[in-house]
Amino acid sequence: MYEVEVESVSNNIRPLYQLEESYIIAVDAEGMLLIDQHAAHERILFDKYRKLEQTRAAESQQLLMPETFDLTPAQAAAFDMVAGELEAYGFSLMRLSGRTVAIKAVPADLPASETRNMLAEILETVEADRRGAARDTLRERVAASLACRAAIKVNVPLAPEKMRWLIDRLLTTSSPTTCPHGRPAILRLTTRDIERGFHRP
Amino acid sequence: MYEVEVESVSNNIRPLYQLEESYIIAVDAEGMLLIDQHAAHERILFDKYRKLEQTRAAESQQLLMPETFDLTPAQAAAFDMVAGELEAYGFSLMRLSGRTVAIKAVPADLPASETRNMLAEILETVEADRRGAARDTLRERVAASLACRAAIKVNVPLAPEKMRWLIDRLLTTSSPTTCPHGRPAILRLTTRDIERGFHRP
Repeated sequence: MYEVEVESVSNNIRPLYQLEESYIIAVDAEGMLLIDQHAAHERILFDKYRKLEQTRAAESQQLLMPETFDLTPAQAAAFDMVAGELEAYGFSLMRLSGRTVAIKAVPADLPASETRNMLAEILETVEADRRGAARDTLRERVAASLACRAAIKVNVPLAPEKMRWLIDRLLTTSSPTTCPHGRPAILRLTTRDIERGFHRP
Repeated sequence: MYEVEVESVSNNIRPLYQLEESYIIAVDAEGMLLIDQHAAHERILFDKYRKLEQTRAAESQQLLMPETFDLTPAQAAAFDMVAGELEAYGFSLMRLSGRTVAIKAVPADLPASETRNMLAEILETVEADRRGAARDTLRERVAASLACRAAIKVNVPLAPEKMRWLIDRLLTTSSPTTCPHGRPAILRLTTRDIERGFHRP
């Protein structure tokens, strides 16, 4: 079972089955493929967010009632560095008195339940390397964190059409074989590997 | 991808797809399985032949026209040692003048086209270890050679019902995980292996 070179990803991947509601078993002309549904969706969303951010067309969902988020002193410093990036991705945030932030809108795909986790994660990342992350790196980090929080989790059943959609969209991304953190989204087992496994010459 | 312990073979294997008309991709509660259709059928036939031989109930098919087979001097000596075993498995053979053998009937499942190859293979094996193969070993060799020649080859399309049949029958054999030569008939990729492949903790 190997991580896959981008060049070896074909356009005729056929999903067969969703294993453990997490991994898609598929085949193509080279043999068998396994696709991590979360990693694949992360890659799809990451590419989408980067593109929307570049065209300043991020989609927001207004919250019915603004939520508040209390920052620690360290988070407050990080917040000021990253607030612009968060807004570029569809957040609408307002600094209230003290270290409280009001969240008025969040990116369109982000589940409400993930908003706080995502903010905390981003602020922690920014804080950890405040001595140098370039603006572009910061943007990538926000997009990656957002993609991770908004992507389909493992242990979620997918209908066959959704598997098909996921694979088709994944193949149009900038790097179909990896998630934005660099982990594999596709693993391959070639027919040759299988033959070897069965001790066939 | 690992060879499978007999104890870990479950009864709820579900075939999904026949890869390259040779290997069945299947799933069970532990994850994914690959089944070598030839090795699996070899095991099924080997067990069947051993049982029929023990109960003296081997099935024959009469040839419309007896065929003749010319033995080399070395094969002639081997033939005398193994003729009884061949008959026990459904061959009907008659030594003619010189070193010619008439083949009047062959085991029921053996394709006519494989008869000569199988005889040559068996005689070669017997010849190679004539200094000691016990009668029981000889019987096993004949059954293994017969199973190999009669089993479904690779690159043969199987209907879903045939895949189902192959798996169900394999699971009732004395050793579902290996072919009579000891090569694997089933390989496993557990969900845990797949998680590791995707760098999941």
